[in-house]
Amino acid sequence: MTVIKVAILGFGTVGEGVYRTIQSHTDELATVLGKKVEVAAVLIKNKQKQREISEEVLVTTDFADILNLPQLDVVVEAIVDKEPSFSFLKKAIERGCHIITANKEMFAYHGKELLELAEVNNVSVGFEATVAGGIPVIQTLRQLLNINRVQQVQGILNGTTNFILTEMREGKQSFAEALSLAQENGFAEADPTNDIEGFDAFYKTMILSRIAFGEEPNWHDVEREGITSITSELIEKAEELGLRYKHIAHISKSGNQIKAKVKPVLVGKEHPFYHVEGVQNAVSVQSDIVGEITLQGPGAGMFPTASAVIEDLVHVFQNKSLPAKRTLSIIQS
Amino acid sequence: MTVIKVAILGFGTVGEGVYRTIQSHTDELATVLGKKVEVAAVLIKNKQKQREISEEVLVTTDFADILNLPQLDVVVEAIVDKEPSFSFLKKAIERGCHIITANKEMFAYHGKELLELAEVNNVSVGFEATVAGGIPVIQTLRQLLNINRVQQVQGILNGTTNFILTEMREGKQSFAEALSLAQENGFAEADPTNDIEGFDAFYKTMILSRIAFGEEPNWHDVEREGITSITSELIEKAEELGLRYKHIAHISKSGNQIKAKVKPVLVGKEHPFYHVEGVQNAVSVQSDIVGEITLQGPGAGMFPTASAVIEDLVHVFQNKSLPAKRTLSIIQS
Repeated sequence: MTVIKVAILGFGTVGEGVYRTIQSHTDELATVLGKKVEVAAVLIKNKQKQREISEEVLVTTDFADILNLPQLDVVVEAIVDKEPSFSFLKKAIERGCHIITANKEMFAYHGKELLELAEVNNVSVGFEATVAGGIPVIQTLRQLLNINRVQQVQGILNGTTNFILTEMREGKQSFAEALSLAQENGFAEADPTNDIEGFDAFYKTMILSRIAFGEEPNWHDVEREGITSITSELIEKAEELGLRYKHIAHISKSGNQIKAKVKPVLVGKEHPFYHVEGVQNAVSVQSDIVGEITLQGPGAGMFPTASAVIEDLVHVFQNKSLPAKRTLSIIQS
Repeated sequence: MTVIKVAILGFGTVGEGVYRTIQSHTDELATVLGKKVEVAAVLIKNKQKQREISEEVLVTTDFADILNLPQLDVVVEAIVDKEPSFSFLKKAIERGCHIITANKEMFAYHGKELLELAEVNNVSVGFEATVAGGIPVIQTLRQLLNINRVQQVQGILNGTTNFILTEMREGKQSFAEALSLAQENGFAEADPTNDIEGFDAFYKTMILSRIAFGEEPNWHDVEREGITSITSELIEKAEELGLRYKHIAHISKSGNQIKAKVKPVLVGKEHPFYHVEGVQNAVSVQSDIVGEITLQGPGAGMFPTASAVIEDLVHVFQNKSLPAKRTLSIIQS
C-alpha cells in the first residue's frame, strides 16, 4: 500500500491530538484513502520535554531536517504566532507538500498568499481547524454556497469568552473569578489577551468572511471589542430583562461592501446563540434559499480540532485532481 | 454552453420550489457547473389547476411523455407515497438519468434497491431532501464519517410535531387546538396521521441510520410512538420540573447491533434539543473524535427543501466521475 508521509509542526494540544488520531485511526484512513497515513516527523521546541512519540518518528527542533526527508506529502501546522509558521509553510509548499493549518492568526494574515502559492505549486491548503474547532463550518459553508447566496454569518467563535460569560451569569462570579476558572480548566492561556480582547475571534471572523463572501472587509473598519468591560452588574441587569451577553462575530454584505464586527451583544431567547453556553462554539448562516442554519459544537480541545485537521487531510487526497485551484476559486469567487 | 435537462415529478410545495429555484438561480448553477440547467418537463396530476410554468416546459400528466424526451439528464421526484414514485424512478434510472428524491417514505422502503440499480446504470441518487429539509445533514454526516466513528445520532425530524408540542407548552393549548393551528399554517396535512403518529419521523430515521451506520435496524424492532398521548397536563407537569417533551429519533450502535426508536422524550435544559422549537428540525451527531455536533434549521418548506434538492443536483454533476458507486459504498460501508 502506498504511504502518505505527514509532518506535524508543534506538539501542543492540537499537534498531539493530530498525532494520536492518526495513530488510532490508521485503519479508517487506509480504508478511505487507499493509502497508509504515517507521521514521519514532529517539530518540537523543547528537546527536554517528555512526549509519547513512537521511536520511528523523527523528532527534531530543526525544520530543515523535516524539509530534507526523502518523502514528505503533507505538513500539518499546529504552532501559534505568525512566525515562523508562515515561513515554514511557504517552504513546505515550495517543496510540493500539501499543507493543513490550525493557526488562525497566521492564516488570517497570510492565508491569501499561501493559497496563491499553493495554486502555483499545485498543492492544497486545508484550514477547517482555524474556525470553530471540530464544527465542519468551512465544508458546510462551501456546500451551501454552491448555489445559496449567503446574506449574513454570525458566530460565537471563541470558547474562552463564552465560558467566562456563562460562568459570570450562571455562577454569579466576577470577571476575574470566571477568568481564573477558565485558566484552571485549561480554557484560557496564562496571558488571556488574545481571547478576552477579541483578537482570536477577530482572526476567525476574517477567515469566515473570506469563505462566505470571497473577501474580507478592511481590517481597520472592523469593530473589535473584547469582553473586559462586561461586569457582573451588567449581566445581572440583562438577565432581569431576559437577555444575555454573547461575544458575537457578525458579517454581512450590503451591495458590494462587506461589514463585520466582533463584540459583546445582548441577545434575547429567540436568538440562535442565546442557549449556546460554556466553551461551545456556534455558527449561524443566513442564505437566500435555505434560510437560517445553525451549527453548534466543541470549538476547541485536543480531539475536536484534530478531527478538523484529519477531515482536511482526507479532503486533500480525495480531491487530489482539483487541488489549490479549486480551494482558491471557491474562496475568492 | 451544454445544457442539463431536468424533469420535475410533482408540482406541490417541493416541486414548485425546485422549479422556481432553478429559474431564479440559473446564473449560479451555470457558474458552478459550467452548464445551463433547464427544466424540460413537469409531471402533474390535475390538468385544470393553474400553475406558473413557462410555456417552453412540457407539462404533462403522463410519465411516458417525460421518458420519451429526446434529452433528459436528471429526474427530480417530489411526489408523495411509494407508488407510482418508485416505478417512475426505476424507469428513469434505466433510461440513464440521475435521480434526486425528496420522498422519504418511498426512499425508506426502496432506497437500497434504487441505489443498487443506479450503480448498475452508472448514475447517481440524491436524497438530501428526504431528511431534515434544508439542513445539510447527509453531506455533513458523510464529511464527518470519513474518519470519525459515529456512536449515536439523535434528531427532531418532524417539524409538525415539534410545532404542536411547542404550541401546547408556550400557548397553553390542547393537542387538538395546536393541531388545528398547524393545519391553518400549512404545517400539517388535512390527514395528519403520518406526522402525529411518527411515521414520517420513522422513515427519516431509517434513512439516517443507513447513512450514519451503513445499515438499518429491523423495522419491526424499532419503537415508534407519535405524540397523540401527550396531554396539556403532562406538558404542564414536565415544565414544573424544568423538562420539555420532544419527539426524538434516537439511533445508536452497540456491538454489531443498530438500535433505533422514535418517540416523545422528556429532556432537560442540558439536552441539545431542549431549545429547538416550532417547525425547526435538528440533528445531533455524537462521534469518537469530534464529540457532539448539532445542526439546526428549517426542516420543511418550499425553499429549504428545494435548496437540498439543488445541492444534490450540484453534487451529482460535480462528482460525475464517481457516481452511484461512491454514494452506495458510503451508505453501505
